[in-house]
Amino acid sequence: MLTLATDFGSPYPAAMKGVVLQESDARLVDVAHDFPRQDVRTAAFWLREILPWFPPAVHLVVVDPGVGTDRAAVVVRAGDHALVGPDNGVLLPAARRLADESDGIDCFEIDLGDPASSTFHGRDVFAPAAALVHETGVGRVETREEFTPAADWVDLTFPEPTVADDRATGEVLVVDGFGNAITNVPGDVLAGRYGSTVAVDGEPAPVEPTYAAVDADRRLVTVGSHENVELAVNRGRGEAAFGVGVGDRLTLELS
Amino acid sequence: MLTLATDFGSPYPAAMKGVVLQESDARLVDVAHDFPRQDVRTAAFWLREILPWFPPAVHLVVVDPGVGTDRAAVVVRAGDHALVGPDNGVLLPAARRLADESDGIDCFEIDLGDPASSTFHGRDVFAPAAALVHETGVGRVETREEFTPAADWVDLTFPEPTVADDRATGEVLVVDGFGNAITNVPGDVLAGRYGSTVAVDGEPAPVEPTYAAVDADRRLVTVGSHENVELAVNRGRGEAAFGVGVGDRLTLELS
Amino acid sequence: MLTLATDFGSPYPAAMKGVVLQESDARLVDVAHDFPRQDVRTAAFWLREILPWFPPAVHLVVVDPGVGTDRAAVVVRAGDHALVGPDNGVLLPAARRLADESDGIDCFEIDLGDPASSTFHGRDVFAPAAALVHETGVGRVETREEFTPAADWVDLTFPEPTVADDRATGEVLVVDGFGNAITNVPGDVLAGRYGSTVAVDGEPAPVEPTYAAVDADRRLVTVGSHENVELAVNRGRGEAAFGVGVGDRLTLELS
Repeated sequence: MLTLATDFGSPYPAAMKGVVLQESDARLVDVAHDFPRQDVRTAAFWLREILPWFPPAVHLVVVDPGVGTDRAAVVVRAGDHALVGPDNGVLLPAARRLADESDGIDCFEIDLGDPASSTFHGRDVFAPAAALVHETGVGRVETREEFTPAADWVDLTFPEPTVADDRATGEVLVVDGFGNAITNVPGDVLAGRYGSTVAVDGEPAPVEPTYAAVDADRRLVTVGSHENVELAVNRGRGEAAFGVGVGDRLTLELS
Repeated sequence: MLTLATDFGSPYPAAMKGVVLQESDARLVDVAHDFPRQDVRTAAFWLREILPWFPPAVHLVVVDPGVGTDRAAVVVRAGDHALVGPDNGVLLPAARRLADESDGIDCFEIDLGDPASSTFHGRDVFAPAAALVHETGVGRVETREEFTPAADWVDLTFPEPTVADDRATGEVLVVDGFGNAITNVPGDVLAGRYGSTVAVDGEPAPVEPTYAAVDADRRLVTVGSHENVELAVNRGRGEAAFGVGVGDRLTLELS
Repeated sequence: MLTLATDFGSPYPAAMKGVVLQESDARLVDVAHDFPRQDVRTAAFWLREILPWFPPAVHLVVVDPGVGTDRAAVVVRAGDHALVGPDNGVLLPAARRLADESDGIDCFEIDLGDPASSTFHGRDVFAPAAALVHETGVGRVETREEFTPAADWVDLTFPEPTVADDRATGEVLVVDGFGNAITNVPGDVLAGRYGSTVAVDGEPAPVEPTYAAVDADRRLVTVGSHENVELAVNRGRGEAAFGVGVGDRLTLELS
């Protein structure tokens, strides 16, 4: 199985699929091709949330503002999974979630020789490398001379929230397509609080287990499917109603 | 074969695919993931029009404004097909089209225990249930204790038009991506009328078998691929030119 | 393998997939369903650039402003590939790229009898024809009575640039989703010029091998993955910064 995730929109991912299918009979599954363009951080968040739901697979990821520069191309092995993409950190949060606790991750630098283009490494580097990992086997990456153990690599982490008994301070990591503002505050802080209210930056909002627990167009604070605190509006857009965007800091008063 | 249809946009459907592929080797086919958000009725229309073109399959459908509330989760069996989704009527128009005339439909309530989230049952309830139906076999749903015959369920029907010899009154059911306004008036009312005109709410328009029978940017009334009367513009948007939207009533004078 | 490319958006392509899967076990791969509506020329460009990256396949293409008129439906065989779609030229540039130099292309007219609709030949003509080509085998198209050798067909070519030692004159063929303006001027004219500047319609711009060679929001001229000259902006939209759109002519002064 080989998944694909890019910020390419259409139709460039199809060229990548063609290249993979020249070399491999892998089942292809699209994760997303509409990540915000060149937004490594948002893509890293979604990959961390989505990829762990898959069975063992090779994950081909291209969000690559440095295409054609001297940034490396890497394979990151995490448990039975391998992620293939640019060395800009986009793979790392997902890799940590996918890795066995004890084993950690392995990182390999990719060298396939000079690519055909310097502007479309998705097609000319990452797709053939992912097909090669798939055909070689995730556990045997080091047997191919195209893959060399990497001494270091670019990491990417998300900011940690500050959680106390009566308040939590964090930030909005992403806004999803429904307009839900997903924060880095763990949902645990709302345990036992359904039916009560919290103050978000001083403004009270009901804490509910799901959107339709409040009337249409009303605000709520809930625990999203990512197990983080989420600011939402039933049948509406939480980002707008709470006046927040990606990177904005916020404080929840829990008393 | 397992089809997927949601109003989730991207990337949430990928988590559902991962979950299905953990439990099943089913071939996955996307129907749509851009249904208007939380618009059960529009999704029900499109599923009724699209799913009957498929060979026997399990159809995983999530347009679910009541996620996390006490609305049931259901499997609807219709002929050799099964539809899996929320009990809000979204499955029913398609199920009636898919059902053998004589056998009708069977409905089962799903119980997989407490889901991991109360906001993403597509991932935590419907995807595993659909995989289970696929692996069990559509004809053997009742052999699994997770599926209990349902005594009743939420239905959804579309309004019926009024058709007389010289006039038909109906409404716009949906507007497609090209801007074609698809009505509930059966195309039969236009039989033998190609090349003539009808009045739509008093304004005459040509009746033609296809868009390019009129010049670019000109209005026409035709029979769409759904076999209903459609208001269109060649290379343009019929909804705008006829000034109609979803739910608007209209009268065709056929004399 | 069977690829699909349309300007249908969603959900109409799913009906085509259902029809194909009724008749064939082909692996399905989406190329694009968001080609600009009824823009035969842009679709033809992208198919020419994308399809040659695929292993041998049947390519089902529907960008068809003349649906339901007397335009023919055709199969174009090119090497080990077959393209199925309307006879409006959309298939030809890709077919020429896919064809063996020596063998050229073969064109067959499709006759499946009267289609169920006159407005959705993607579902009622091209999908069943493509499934039939797939099941018959690309090399055996002429063995089926549904396919008759065509005496002629509609062609489509792109304008040729004028290239001299010190200047090249061409036009913008398409603008991609990133905003890169892709011209018909061959990238060869920039050979050896990375790090220098060219004048685009009199305005100097740096020539660089890739986007990130200039600062964010700065213009550059590069050779795109299609091996043509491309007007771009690092992390921005080249079309806007250069003030060009599809069909606009431009001159590069190379001195």
